[in-house]
This record gives sequence, structure tokens and C-alpha cells, in this order.
Amino acid sequence: MEVGIVGGTGALGGGLARRWLLAGVDVRLGSREAARGEAAAAQLRADLPDAPGQVTGVDNVGACAAPIVVLAVPYGGLDAVLVPLVDAVDGRIVVSAVNPLAFDGDGPYNAVVPEGSVAQACAARLPGARMTAAFHSVSSRELAHTERPLDDDVLVVGDDAEAVDAVVALADLLDGVRAYPAGALRLATPLEGLTAVIIAVNKRHKTHAGLRLSRLTVD
Amino acid sequence: MEVGIVGGTGALGGGLARRWLLAGVDVRLGSREAARGEAAAAQLRADLPDAPGQVTGVDNVGACAAPIVVLAVPYGGLDAVLVPLVDAVDGRIVVSAVNPLAFDGDGPYNAVVPEGSVAQACAARLPGARMTAAFHSVSSRELAHTERPLDDDVLVVGDDAEAVDAVVALADLLDGVRAYPAGALRLATPLEGLTAVIIAVNKRHKTHAGLRLSRLTVD
Repeated sequence: MEVGIVGGTGALGGGLARRWLLAGVDVRLGSREAARGEAAAAQLRADLPDAPGQVTGVDNVGACAAPIVVLAVPYGGLDAVLVPLVDAVDGRIVVSAVNPLAFDGDGPYNAVVPEGSVAQACAARLPGARMTAAFHSVSSRELAHTERPLDDDVLVVGDDAEAVDAVVALADLLDGVRAYPAGALRLATPLEGLTAVIIAVNKRHKTHAGLRLSRLTVD
Repeated sequence: MEVGIVGGTGALGGGLARRWLLAGVDVRLGSREAARGEAAAAQLRADLPDAPGQVTGVDNVGACAAPIVVLAVPYGGLDAVLVPLVDAVDGRIVVSAVNPLAFDGDGPYNAVVPEGSVAQACAARLPGARMTAAFHSVSSRELAHTERPLDDDVLVVGDDAEAVDAVVALADLLDGVRAYPAGALRLATPLEGLTAVIIAVNKRHKTHAGLRLSRLTVD
């Protein structure tokens, strides 16, 4: 299995890469400049010498050569990141992990996205992509602590059922994660928004909380 | 402790009432007509003869005589429910449990609320209320199964910290619930929206899933 990460030098993208490499997934680690992608890949190889997955540092367009491409970039400046990717993601499964997070004196909140969600905005800008959304509430800090398993449910939304199932299978490879299909792409809105709630809880409780669903095995 | 429930004859309001009565909380069970509220209260007394809490059937205005008032009504027709309550909730702690749920051929989705969230819409229509929001993703079906504990985290949002803490304390009395302050009232938007995601998961997995946060005790 192989995954590409747009924004692979950031905390979320880099953390996902670590966990996938340890699970034997090959990673194309993208950055705006290929040299930065390669530097980050070299660091991962040095940190995880025994990981069964192979990591390659590339630019963001190069990351889109993988069959599944995760967008792990900040909401600010997203359009500029997407424009060069339009052709490269044609026919690819693309996963938006982008949260429209903003902060003011009252704490975290969600920027209003005219399309309804960042995922829907990405779908509009990447018309050839098989668009999905997931990983919104997975803590970058926890991803980096590869010595302990995660404790997270990953909810995957999208209108292409086969694409959603592929992302669920990829997410399930993360140690300690259970992944589930969770409805249509338009339901990315509350998944993106919940991250602000979790940040508010984290601040109060000095933790890095994750999302779990209960009663998933009870009828 | 005493709680009033606007829409106490519905599945959510009635289920919360059952659980609170069993926890020793007195309940003012409201309905549009006092006679329907009293009939529902009589049913609860018959179903739970040993519950330490006392239940009184009233109209929705009568429910607002309690220090904490839960709005457990559908989003459709909400304005008509709120208009008669404006004076009655003055100075009261009010909890919106209302989800802006809608359904079409693609499944559940969230109606766009011009104020940002139902909770913020309620705050605008009930200016004297100390507005909070909670209980969005607690399953009515599970509430009714009082023979087993819940398995839910209740996230409480609001801009009045004292009001939020009072709702957290009330929610913590529900068997199997952990409740947490979770930020400003504007963060009701993703909490309200997440219910559509949970319904989509429920449909696929034939369950009544609930929300839990992980890592809340880890630093």
C-alpha cells in the first residue's frame, strides 16, 4: 500500500507518515519544495530505521502519484496549495484532513466555508479527485508518540463508497485506530468543526483528547 | 435538584426525564398542553415507581419554573415553541439539545442555521436566558433502556461559565455519562451537526452510537 501526503512536513502529515511507515505503508512525503520533502523523509528514515514502509521525499505534485493522497495542510492558503495539484489528482482518492480553525479572544472557532466544508471546497477545486475527508480530530502530538498506540475512531465521509472504503482500510492500519464510513461528503462540516471543540476541551483539561464512538458493537 | 424539560413528551425529553428521576432529580415535564404533560408524567410515575425523583406534568411555560430548562424539541417549529417562553426563562439556565437535522435521498444532513447554530438562534430569541447547549448526540433509544447505563460523554458549551458548570453537574448525574465544559456557545455548531454523522454511522452499523472522548486523563 502507498499513500501520498500533501503537507507532509507539517505536524499532522509527518505524524501520519510515521504511523503508516511503522504499519508497512509506503509514503510519498510531499512539501512545496522537493528538497524540504526529502529532508523530512531523511529525518523519518533516521528516526524509524526499522519501519517496514519506505518513505520518499517529493514535492506536493509528486505526492499525488500515490493512489490515495492526504491533504494535511492549514486552511489558510489552501487554494494556493491546490491549484498546482488539479491535474495530478485526476482519478486519485483524495482525503481532506483540513480543519477551518481560527482563534480569537474567546478561543477556537470555525471559519465559515462558503461551500459548507473544506472538503466540499476541495471537491470543487479538484474536480477529477474522488474526494473524501477524515483524520480531522487525530492529535498531531499523539501521532508523534509512536511508542504508544492511538486511541481514536476515524470517521471517513465521502460520496464515492469505494473511495471511502479504501480510506477506511488505510486508516485502520494506524495502531489503535478504528475507522468507519460515516456518510456523505457534506457531513465533513461537523467533523471539521469538532476539532475546535476538542481544542477547547484540551485547553481546559491539559490533554490531547481524541474522538471515540460508543455502542458500535451493540444492536 | 430540579430540571424543567420543554418538549418532555418527546423521545429525547422523556428519556432524559427517566434517567434524571432515577438519579433523584425532580423533573417538571413540559408539553404544549399541560394535560399532555401530566399524562406523560403519570406514565413515568407508573413505569418508575421507585425512582427517588418527583415528576410533575406541566405546560412548557410551567417547565421554565425550574432553575435549569432543557429544550428537547424538534428544529422544525422551534420559533413557535420559544415565543411563549421569553419571559418565563428570564434569568434561567437554558440548555438547547436541538439538532438542525434534515434528511433527503443522500441521508441525514444539517440545515443551515443563519445564526450559526440552533443554540445561538435560541440565545437571540431568549435574550434573558443564560444559554448553553448539550445532549445533542445522546441516543433517545438508549435513554429509554434504563436497565443499562449510558456510555456517553456530554459536551456542554456556553459563554456563561457558571451556567455551563451547572449543566455539567446535572448531566453527570445521568448513569454512565461523563460531562465536560467544551468551549463557547458558538461551538454548538459542530455538536449539533455531529448528530447527522452518528445517524449515518448508526444506519450502516445497526446501532445507536454515542460520543466519547479519549485521552481525557492523560497529560
